[in-house]
Amino acid sequence: MRKINVGLIGFGMIGSGVVKALLNRRQLLKEKLGLDINLKKICDKDLTSNRGISIKKGLLTRDAREVINDPEIDIIIELIGGIHPAKEIIISALKNKKHIVTANKLLLAEEGKGIFRIAKEYDREVYFEASVGGGIPIVRSIREGLIANRFLNILGIVNGTSNFILSKMTDEAMEFEDALIKAKEKGYAEKDPSLDIEGWDSAHKLIILCVLAFGRWVDLKKVYVEGISNIKALDIAYAQDLGYVIKLLAIAKVVNGELEARVNPTLLPKEHLLSSVSGNFNAIYINGDLVGEQLFYGEGAGRLPTSSAVVSDIVEIATKIVEGKRFHRRGLDFKSNIKRVRRMNEVLAKYYIRFSVIDKPGVLARIAHILGFHRISIASVVQKERREEKVVPVVMLTHEAKENNVRVALKEINRLSVVKEKSVVLRMER
Amino acid sequence: MRKINVGLIGFGMIGSGVVKALLNRRQLLKEKLGLDINLKKICDKDLTSNRGISIKKGLLTRDAREVINDPEIDIIIELIGGIHPAKEIIISALKNKKHIVTANKLLLAEEGKGIFRIAKEYDREVYFEASVGGGIPIVRSIREGLIANRFLNILGIVNGTSNFILSKMTDEAMEFEDALIKAKEKGYAEKDPSLDIEGWDSAHKLIILCVLAFGRWVDLKKVYVEGISNIKALDIAYAQDLGYVIKLLAIAKVVNGELEARVNPTLLPKEHLLSSVSGNFNAIYINGDLVGEQLFYGEGAGRLPTSSAVVSDIVEIATKIVEGKRFHRRGLDFKSNIKRVRRMNEVLAKYYIRFSVIDKPGVLARIAHILGFHRISIASVVQKERREEKVVPVVMLTHEAKENNVRVALKEINRLSVVKEKSVVLRMER
Repeated sequence: MRKINVGLIGFGMIGSGVVKALLNRRQLLKEKLGLDINLKKICDKDLTSNRGISIKKGLLTRDAREVINDPEIDIIIELIGGIHPAKEIIISALKNKKHIVTANKLLLAEEGKGIFRIAKEYDREVYFEASVGGGIPIVRSIREGLIANRFLNILGIVNGTSNFILSKMTDEAMEFEDALIKAKEKGYAEKDPSLDIEGWDSAHKLIILCVLAFGRWVDLKKVYVEGISNIKALDIAYAQDLGYVIKLLAIAKVVNGELEARVNPTLLPKEHLLSSVSGNFNAIYINGDLVGEQLFYGEGAGRLPTSSAVVSDIVEIATKIVEGKRFHRRGLDFKSNIKRVRRMNEVLAKYYIRFSVIDKPGVLARIAHILGFHRISIASVVQKERREEKVVPVVMLTHEAKENNVRVALKEINRLSVVKEKSVVLRMER
Repeated sequence: MRKINVGLIGFGMIGSGVVKALLNRRQLLKEKLGLDINLKKICDKDLTSNRGISIKKGLLTRDAREVINDPEIDIIIELIGGIHPAKEIIISALKNKKHIVTANKLLLAEEGKGIFRIAKEYDREVYFEASVGGGIPIVRSIREGLIANRFLNILGIVNGTSNFILSKMTDEAMEFEDALIKAKEKGYAEKDPSLDIEGWDSAHKLIILCVLAFGRWVDLKKVYVEGISNIKALDIAYAQDLGYVIKLLAIAKVVNGELEARVNPTLLPKEHLLSSVSGNFNAIYINGDLVGEQLFYGEGAGRLPTSSAVVSDIVEIATKIVEGKRFHRRGLDFKSNIKRVRRMNEVLAKYYIRFSVIDKPGVLARIAHILGFHRISIASVVQKERREEKVVPVVMLTHEAKENNVRVALKEINRLSVVKEKSVVLRMER
């Protein structure tokens, strides 16, 4: 039986899951594939921590070069995360004619274009199923299973931490800060959770989804990113009353041949499939011109789901190694029919706006007048409390309006003496 | 650019969708793959119907042998459906060293084992993404994306016709017969809908899911199959009141190393992800030991989704042809840890039972006594109407019980003079 040697760099939480899966599933993979996937070297700075796995001593090294330069190793799994030294390791490995499996969304989002150029030059593969949606086979599905489709849009809940926090806030009427504490207790949020809660992790994944679906590496700077740390329990409650759920979505849409790419908390109708995705789960909703609506749901992070994705990538590359004299590369860059990436200012959306205003005659009329002047028309207004001459919340849902108009109008409205707090603005999707 | 020639046999509704996709997406596939997928021959008995596609005359033939014997054709798409002559065509094509793409679930469920044996012997591939879940890339996902997992269970809504009918019955309180008429009007049900509504189509797909997930071709005779034609609006209403939705499910479960494989209408809690799958959509819920719960959702049939799946299979095979001198086969039969397939009698489930009984003292006690004697314990009882000495429905939900005990107990209960109609029994899942 043909043996394929793999080396792992980054023996942390995810890395130890991958090691376990490779050892436990070696026999299953032999049966399914007729191939022996052999873990030949593991590199980490820390060789002493107990990961609960018994490993032959000779496997471990602190020197990444021992893995990269091992002539018997065909595939290198990069699980360090972050830009440095992951980038340098991947590039030297590619130049050494190694194939790469990585879960590093941050690196791919920021440096993917360059990395794939090098991979092409050296005729090696970079696989990255674990970088989006954890164990959900979404990369493979878009790239292979749905290859014949032109895609219309993608809406993704791709950050489990944020989704857990929003679910807690929704189900238990918690404020953000309390829900974040719960997430930390459960191990779903890191000490510094900003990458997750401020939307950056979702943006990295969005960039990867965009290149798969639209054949174009979107510059992170062109992605509008808004997180969930300003979401109030009050807004979630209003949304619920109006029949909506608030989710942090990664959104990519093709509108008139232009691509909209953004991450923002979003009001979704309760009946939307994504609305019932709760807790730390992920789901990607994608609309292809042939297949129509599709939804992929599963755990988006964690040791076991990630190991499932990493092993599936190793298997794909190993099978290709055994099959082919040469690799037939599937380009990530195809003609996408997309002329350009839209600026956020140009985006059209429906809006949820909550004003904090003095409850007195004429206030609503003044706000409505300013909105109308900027071509924002109101679909509905909710004012629950009546407290004359006191500050009360007033919620408006708009018809479709242009982001820029909303921004200008709100600047104007926020300056009114009857408006007592900065108005809250959230976008809606259907 | 390397050209791969394909031949299509069966130019019906699905076939014409595939032809359109192959012609319309030829350029996109060139860009994505660097390969030219060329439709070289189309075979059908009917060469005169207008399919709304302009095709060069020379492409068409009425003689399948012209396709099978064409030395330039590498891949043959079988879209005739049914056993004969699809089986004979596939076998002769394999013997002629052609690869096969098929959507024929009936053929695979009944003859798959033999067909794959022949494919192995002649070192050719048989791909079948379109056979389950239409455009949902579920075959690829189980076989490749989730390859490292041991699976615990699969629950699938895999028949859009039945799901449409049940959704109509649920949303509009329709009876089965009226909902079936609606399904026919919409083109979701065929003139003879028995394959769909009696559960056989779901059973065929279940067999395919089982071989993918558990490495074993389950004999169709060993699959318990119960359709939806006996479901009453009354039972749907009771289920709803109790917090459940009724869905036709294809179910595969590993229990103590034994496989349970069955198709039956099932009460699912409203919160279950599958409960919100409505209309003619499909969804497959699958539980792997690494990935945990996953759900794949999309359109399960129709010209465009099916063409998406068929083209993805063609692409996979074409890529393999270009890459390899030889094929590295992924076996469908691996050691599955499954000792045997359970008989239905042995299955454990919770049950919904509706009795039609004379409303008088002592009746419930007699029924409860018989159930208790057969070790079936009652979780809850609902009797909405009170009409003394008249026939009323009484609904019971049981704790987990053995199918055989339920059958024996009900035979006994149905013989009671106070029981006026055959009791309705439905299984429940969590």
